[in-house]
Amino acid sequence: MLGTCLDNVRRTVPLVHNITNYVTVNDVANILLACGGSPIMSDEPEDVEDITTICGGLNINIGTLNQRSIQGMFRAGKKAAELGHVLLLDPVGAGASALRTNTAVELMKALPFTVIRGNISEIKTLALGSGTTKGVDADVADAVTESNLDAAVAFVKDFAQKSRAIVAVTGAIDLVSDGERCYVIRNGRAEMGKVTGTGCQLSGMMTAFLVANPDDRLTAAAAAVCAMGLAGEIGWSHMTESDGNSTYRNRIIDAIYHMDGAVLEKGAKYEVR
Amino acid sequence: MLGTCLDNVRRTVPLVHNITNYVTVNDVANILLACGGSPIMSDEPEDVEDITTICGGLNINIGTLNQRSIQGMFRAGKKAAELGHVLLLDPVGAGASALRTNTAVELMKALPFTVIRGNISEIKTLALGSGTTKGVDADVADAVTESNLDAAVAFVKDFAQKSRAIVAVTGAIDLVSDGERCYVIRNGRAEMGKVTGTGCQLSGMMTAFLVANPDDRLTAAAAAVCAMGLAGEIGWSHMTESDGNSTYRNRIIDAIYHMDGAVLEKGAKYEVR
Amino acid sequence: MLGTCLDNVRRTVPLVHNITNYVTVNDVANILLACGGSPIMSDEPEDVEDITTICGGLNINIGTLNQRSIQGMFRAGKKAAELGHVLLLDPVGAGASALRTNTAVELMKALPFTVIRGNISEIKTLALGSGTTKGVDADVADAVTESNLDAAVAFVKDFAQKSRAIVAVTGAIDLVSDGERCYVIRNGRAEMGKVTGTGCQLSGMMTAFLVANPDDRLTAAAAAVCAMGLAGEIGWSHMTESDGNSTYRNRIIDAIYHMDGAVLEKGAKYEVR
Repeated sequence: MLGTCLDNVRRTVPLVHNITNYVTVNDVANILLACGGSPIMSDEPEDVEDITTICGGLNINIGTLNQRSIQGMFRAGKKAAELGHVLLLDPVGAGASALRTNTAVELMKALPFTVIRGNISEIKTLALGSGTTKGVDADVADAVTESNLDAAVAFVKDFAQKSRAIVAVTGAIDLVSDGERCYVIRNGRAEMGKVTGTGCQLSGMMTAFLVANPDDRLTAAAAAVCAMGLAGEIGWSHMTESDGNSTYRNRIIDAIYHMDGAVLEKGAKYEVR
Repeated sequence: MLGTCLDNVRRTVPLVHNITNYVTVNDVANILLACGGSPIMSDEPEDVEDITTICGGLNINIGTLNQRSIQGMFRAGKKAAELGHVLLLDPVGAGASALRTNTAVELMKALPFTVIRGNISEIKTLALGSGTTKGVDADVADAVTESNLDAAVAFVKDFAQKSRAIVAVTGAIDLVSDGERCYVIRNGRAEMGKVTGTGCQLSGMMTAFLVANPDDRLTAAAAAVCAMGLAGEIGWSHMTESDGNSTYRNRIIDAIYHMDGAVLEKGAKYEVR
Repeated sequence: MLGTCLDNVRRTVPLVHNITNYVTVNDVANILLACGGSPIMSDEPEDVEDITTICGGLNINIGTLNQRSIQGMFRAGKKAAELGHVLLLDPVGAGASALRTNTAVELMKALPFTVIRGNISEIKTLALGSGTTKGVDADVADAVTESNLDAAVAFVKDFAQKSRAIVAVTGAIDLVSDGERCYVIRNGRAEMGKVTGTGCQLSGMMTAFLVANPDDRLTAAAAAVCAMGLAGEIGWSHMTESDGNSTYRNRIIDAIYHMDGAVLEKGAKYEVR
C-alpha cells in the first residue's frame, strides 16, 4: 500500500508549488523530479496565486522567510485553500526566533493545513502555540526514543487532533499521525543529519505524495517518510570510503530516482499504533 | 566552426552577469566556470549597473522573479544595452502567471535582446505577446517533433524576425534561428528533463558563447545548444547503475568541463534549414 | 596545534549564523556540517537578532547583497558584537561596484570584525577604504606570488593592525595575519578556482573554527585555511578521469567530512613570518 503511493506519484506527475528556503531549494527541486513529481518555485506575492492555481499542492517552508515571502505564503495559502489543494507547512526554526514562531502560528490560524512536518522541537513549539523565542536546542532533550515512545505517540496524536492536520515528526524515529492512528517509522540513518536539507526535501516530496493519493493521505504521508529514510539507507550502501556528506546528498536523491513501489514496500520499516 | 566557438570562450574568459533564479543558480555558476567563462550574480537595483558594466553579457532569467529583482532586470538591461553588451532573456514560466508573462513581454519591449531562449510553451506565449495567464502545460501538446518540424521551424524563424533576436527553442529537438537560417539540433537525452535547471544552465553558458563570438552569434548560440546536449550524452555514458538525476547533474557539468572544440565539433548533431 | 583547532570544532559543534549569498549557500551549509559545525541562515532584519543570539558566530558575506539583507547584516552584526560573538566579513565583489565597496567599508566602521577574509583585490579595496567603483580584475595583477611575498606579508600585517582584525587573503598563496605574525600557507590547488564558492565555504568554516577556539584565533583562522586547501588536495586525489568541477565540489566537502586533526596537522603546509 505504501508502494502504491509512490507509483501513483510517478503515474500522475503532481505539480508542486514550493515557497521554500534558498539554502536547500535545488535539492527540493531535484528530489521532486526524482520521485516523479514536478516542482515550481515562486514566492513573490504578485506571482504566487497564479502559480499555485495550476499546481496540485503547496509546500510552505519558512527556512529563510522574509517580509515579502511571508506575504507570499499567506496569499498562496489562501488561494490553495480555496481550491482545495494539499497544503503542507514546514516550520523550519520555529522556536528559534519570534518571527519564525509567530509566522508559523499565524499560518496555522489562517490556513487549513493538510499536513505539518518538522522536527520535535519545532512541533513542540507549535503545539504550545507560543510566540516566545527559544534556542534551537531548547527541546532537543525530548528527542523521540524507544524509552519515551508512548508519550511521544500520544503527543503527536493529540496535536494532530487539535490542529486538524496530519502531523509528521521526523528524527531518529519518525511519527506520522492523523489523530487516530500513528505510524512509527524506523527507516533512515543518523548520517542523514550531516546533509543539509533532508527535512526540506521530505516536505517537498511529501506534498507530491499527498497530491497523488487524495483518498488516503495518512498512508501517503507515511509512505513519503519511509521513502526518504529508505533512500538514506540505499544511498549509504553505495558510498565508497572517500565519499562524505556532499556525495551522500546526491546518493539519497539518486536512490529516490531509482525507487519503485515494490522496493519501497519491501524496505519500509514501520508499525501502526 | 561550432568547436571554435567553445575554444573562443576558453581563450577569452567572458565575464557574465546573471540575474537568475535561486533554484538553479549554483549550477549556472559552475557550468559557466566549466565552459571557460566567469560568473557574477547580482539582482539588487542599486548594484546591477556597476556589475553589468564590467561584464560582457547579461543573462536575465525570470524563474523566481520578485518586485525588486524585476527592477534590477530593467536597470541592468538598459545599462547593458547602452554598452552594446550581449543580452539574453530566459522567460521561465512565461504563460504560467500574469506577472511572468507581462514581465517577459515588457522586457522585450524595453530591451534589444540578442537572444531569447526558452521551451516551446514559453516562446509561444511571447510570440502571442499576450498577458493572459495560462497553465504551464497549455502549449505542451505543441512540442517540436519530426512530424511538425517544418511548421516549428517556420514559427521560430518568424518570431526571430519579429523580435529581431536570435530565438532558441529547446526540447527533444532544439531550434535556433536568426530569422534567416535555423539550426535543427538533435543532441541531448530525455533524462536531462529530470535534472532541474538544465535550461537555466544553457542560458548562462549561451551568454558566454555569444560574448566570446561577436562575429557569428547564430553559430555561437547553436554551439552552446549542441554543447549542452552533447554534455548530456557524455555525462550519461559515465553513469553507473545506482546513479540518478542528482549525480547526472554533476556529470553534465563535468562533461562541459572536459569538452574542447574538437569534441564538440565531432559530437554536434545538427542540420541548417 | 592546527589539528587541535579542527578537533575542537567537532567536539563543540559551534552554531554559525550565515548571512550569505544565494549562489553558494547550500555548499556553505554542507561544509559547516562536514567540519562538525551547525549552520543557520537568516537575512530578514526582523529575524536576524534572535537567530544570531543563539549562535556563537556570524558570517557576513555580501555576494548577493540587497537593501533588505544589508539591513539584516547591520542588525545582526550589532547584536553579535554586543554578545561578544565571532564576527567574520567576506567582502565578495568589493571593488566591483560602489554598493559592495561602500557596504563593506560601512560594515567595517560599524562592527568590530574578528576576521576579514577575501581575495587580494577585495582586501586591497578595503585597505584603500575607497568607495570608488573598479573592475573586478583591477588589482589582479597584484596576486600574491613568491616574488612579491615580502611586500604582500607586510601589506596584510599592516591592514590587520589598522582594521584590528585578523586578515586572511586567499589565493595561490594564502596569508593570515593578526598584525604581528603572518601565516604563509601553500595548501590547495589551482583547480579550486573552477568551483564556485570555495571562498564562501572557507568563510563559513572559518567562523566555526574561530568560535570553537576562542583562545587562539589566529591559529584557528590559519587552521581553517589549511583545512580548505588540504581538502582541495585530498579531493583532487579521488578524481577520476571524467570527473570535472561539479564533482570536485562534492569531493572537497567530502574531504572535510573525513578530515581529523591528525590528517590536518600532517597535511598543513605553512610557515609563520
